[in-house]
Amino acid sequence: MRTQVVIVGAGPAGLLLAHLLRLEGVHAVVLETRHREHVLGRIRAGVLEPGTVEVLREAGLGTRLDRVGLEHQGFSLRFDGTEHRIALSGLTGKPITVYGQQEVVRDLLDAAEPEPCFGVSDVALHDVTTDRPSVTFTDTDGVRRTLHCDVIAGCDGFHGVSRNVVPATRFERTFPHSWLGILAKSAPAHDELVYAHHERGFALHSMRSPELTRLYLQVEPGERLEDWPDERIWDELATRLGAPCEPGPVVEKGITAMRAHVAEPMRHGRLFLAGDAAHIVPPTGAKGLNLAVADVRLLSRALTALLLHGEEGDALSYSDIRLRGAWRAERFSTEMTELLHRSADPFEQRLSLARLRRIASSAAAATALAQDYVGISEDA
Amino acid sequence: MRTQVVIVGAGPAGLLLAHLLRLEGVHAVVLETRHREHVLGRIRAGVLEPGTVEVLREAGLGTRLDRVGLEHQGFSLRFDGTEHRIALSGLTGKPITVYGQQEVVRDLLDAAEPEPCFGVSDVALHDVTTDRPSVTFTDTDGVRRTLHCDVIAGCDGFHGVSRNVVPATRFERTFPHSWLGILAKSAPAHDELVYAHHERGFALHSMRSPELTRLYLQVEPGERLEDWPDERIWDELATRLGAPCEPGPVVEKGITAMRAHVAEPMRHGRLFLAGDAAHIVPPTGAKGLNLAVADVRLLSRALTALLLHGEEGDALSYSDIRLRGAWRAERFSTEMTELLHRSADPFEQRLSLARLRRIASSAAAATALAQDYVGISEDA
Repeated sequence: MRTQVVIVGAGPAGLLLAHLLRLEGVHAVVLETRHREHVLGRIRAGVLEPGTVEVLREAGLGTRLDRVGLEHQGFSLRFDGTEHRIALSGLTGKPITVYGQQEVVRDLLDAAEPEPCFGVSDVALHDVTTDRPSVTFTDTDGVRRTLHCDVIAGCDGFHGVSRNVVPATRFERTFPHSWLGILAKSAPAHDELVYAHHERGFALHSMRSPELTRLYLQVEPGERLEDWPDERIWDELATRLGAPCEPGPVVEKGITAMRAHVAEPMRHGRLFLAGDAAHIVPPTGAKGLNLAVADVRLLSRALTALLLHGEEGDALSYSDIRLRGAWRAERFSTEMTELLHRSADPFEQRLSLARLRRIASSAAAATALAQDYVGISEDA
Repeated sequence: MRTQVVIVGAGPAGLLLAHLLRLEGVHAVVLETRHREHVLGRIRAGVLEPGTVEVLREAGLGTRLDRVGLEHQGFSLRFDGTEHRIALSGLTGKPITVYGQQEVVRDLLDAAEPEPCFGVSDVALHDVTTDRPSVTFTDTDGVRRTLHCDVIAGCDGFHGVSRNVVPATRFERTFPHSWLGILAKSAPAHDELVYAHHERGFALHSMRSPELTRLYLQVEPGERLEDWPDERIWDELATRLGAPCEPGPVVEKGITAMRAHVAEPMRHGRLFLAGDAAHIVPPTGAKGLNLAVADVRLLSRALTALLLHGEEGDALSYSDIRLRGAWRAERFSTEMTELLHRSADPFEQRLSLARLRRIASSAAAATALAQDYVGISEDA
């Protein structure tokens, strides 16, 4: 079997890349070790930058997004018992859009053609430093197959095989926090996102729709879900957010560790990494999905130029350009994490409060934060 | 012997407090364990915020400052082989003034009346939680003396006795860097300050006058002066600053550890702390002297109201207000330190570069930095 691009991974990065390539007339096959239902069911981020929305719309993926996505003109910071609103549109001219990653994945799967190969196993990449790389895998019938191609796109995340094929320098940071997240069938208690810095820890009020609330609590690494019955979660949320949340049936509940990771470079021969395979950001800045979309937007352009026109300029600069974007996102996500979480270090605690007060009192500082949040950057 | 205020310490905080109190008609005695020449010879910071200049001018201390102080409309950041200027006046409407701390001390000593009691020893504070505190000390003739007073101002720095008398919560941070500083008889190679972030470490080009250059190099903690002959220092400065400095006779040379410290509260009964006795900032933000002047400006007002008019409002709020200022300065100084120094952590190194690029590309981020640098804040 032969295709132009083998895309390993059917998360948002891989699916969007396949979609964008198809629009340009480049043939791609998507391989995914998980099953369709698993991919569709993964709850992840839900804040889209305007640049991300634009990419999705331009790719013809905006119909449902425009219908049910919630445009937010700002968000709130809560600390010291007060609330301070960051007027995103007022400060930057741009809103963000609340639309769950699983909705983006659903839109992408609805549009996918051909359907990704789900449930494959033992994926292996070969000859990536030649012009004729290939990918071997076992299909759902247990048959071993080989896909010959021009380019491989590693979109299989932090736990995938692709990133280990790239001889890279790894940059890592772990944070001494975890997030306990719940998805609840209840109307959001606030119109916009509320980020709370509280002496008991960080809390985030978010939503996925007018009927679905998404809430997070900072917990200690190593804490177990069984220690957090729903009632305790709702109580703790009310305390930290400074306002009661309307409890509703909890439809999803999980604890996520917080880490940052960047691999340099993002390319090795004919293998290009995109999304979590290349970089993980702590979730506080809501940048993970946006970063993946920015990777894929450039990568689709680079591969189209390379494969259809023999122009390799964008392919050569892909890694450098996207690493700059990745570090920008790591910077912001790290800053947001340090700004909002309770630290065990009392000095750091005081610094966080001083940072929050600064944002609340300087239009310049608030504007810089808002620019980061909506994704306006030095490349803009 | 009796006075209204005993001021422990004849650094800039203590001397300025005595001066401001005298202008209001409050009598104060300044005690200092060091000798006059030592106090006059201490080389410290050299960047005055506009607010600091204003305090000095209003107190009649502006004559020499206005004549020889160098007003700077901006400074430069050097990284990635490029230079980016922070236009302080353009971004904030305010300049900074380069005028050495030892010049401020000289002006204060010239104006001092009565002369501080230099060379005293065994200073001890008594009954600070009563209305009748006192200070005992041994004078230069070896005679033990007691000063009765209404208020004690602890302006004797981090190594003085005052801060240990306050039952305080201490917040501390040490940084894994030291500064090697030299003062050289050579014309500054640049018109303005240059802060360089280089892979070999931070460097700072500064000056005290058109004939005196002040230069700093980040060195490892534990490094010794004898390992840094002048030639090595000049070579290293040229490499890190990306431009040769004009070598000249080195008239002062020293290594300073970098630390941050805040004690809460800054008041205990009739003892008020000001300056380094209450807080130490890492030197990267050039905030130490400015913070001391802001403390003393409020303290002189508070003590005047208390002692002349029996109003204790400002005295009661002194600690809270100045702690907010101290944490603002700690925040900025910590940020500047992390922005500019080489870190042993490669992830942190990349973050620093991303932060520098952000400042160079976002007017909002540059404005926020400039506001911090000139000392415009939430209280402004």
